[in-house]
Amino acid sequence: MADHLRFMGIAYQEALKALDEGEVPIGALIVRDQQIIGRGYNRVEQLSDATAHAEIIAISAASNSSASWRLNGCTLYVTIEPCAMCLGAIMQSRIETIVYGAADPRYGAIDSHSYRRETERTYRRFPSVIANILNEDCSRLLTGFFAGLRK
Amino acid sequence: MADHLRFMGIAYQEALKALDEGEVPIGALIVRDQQIIGRGYNRVEQLSDATAHAEIIAISAASNSSASWRLNGCTLYVTIEPCAMCLGAIMQSRIETIVYGAADPRYGAIDSHSYRRETERTYRRFPSVIANILNEDCSRLLTGFFAGLRK
Repeated sequence: MADHLRFMGIAYQEALKALDEGEVPIGALIVRDQQIIGRGYNRVEQLSDATAHAEIIAISAASNSSASWRLNGCTLYVTIEPCAMCLGAIMQSRIETIVYGAADPRYGAIDSHSYRRETERTYRRFPSVIANILNEDCSRLLTGFFAGLRK
Repeated sequence: MADHLRFMGIAYQEALKALDEGEVPIGALIVRDQQIIGRGYNRVEQLSDATAHAEIIAISAASNSSASWRLNGCTLYVTIEPCAMCLGAIMQSRIETIVYGAADPRYGAIDSHSYRRETERTYRRFPSVIANILNEDCSRLLTGFFAGLRK
């Protein structure tokens, strides 16, 4: 649990980088054997690329650094519940554990929407999920960002 | 229909590039107003990146070339039915039409598996889908590749 808080704290720092750059503030890390092997933050606007979510960037970085697309044994830390695209990337890359901060009632594909059953049917497995780590901080960062946009 | 065949023929040429490089042979294009604005082929092994599917690369390329992540009005041509990750990327990028060659009974998320209903619930829309364009050629390319691997 202490490790989860520590790693989520680092994912949160990634989310702050997104905030600084005017992006929806979401950050992610990939950890294997207690080592961070990839990290990323949301860069959709800067890269003009709808696929540039924090999780996708972290997965690409982790795969590059380990010279293999297979991320068996890895844990993804992400400040906000992943969307369906990112869940798909998690399955493709064989990440085994998902730790997320706050749920995303609108787009979240792990618990907020029901992609789990069809995902299990397709891949015959599903990652372990640990939710609500630094929940309030991760949530406040996101809701504060959107409240700021509306002003 | 003639346009669909023509564009799928170009996506097929992209798939041949993947084949030449020892990758699972799948190719994709993004078309807007009859112009190709992005293209890609599967590069998972070369880039050591599970997210490097043909569709993701084509979406990133189209977004870069049009300097916006919003691909409204665009059509994706892809030789094989997209997986759940790529369907998620299609939704995130707001692509409006999917034209695919051959179904993928194992991982296909459009017709082979039932992601459509949950996707409609999440996004309150779903792209138009046109299937089985150059079906036999696209299918044969893929099955031939896997048969070769088994030998």
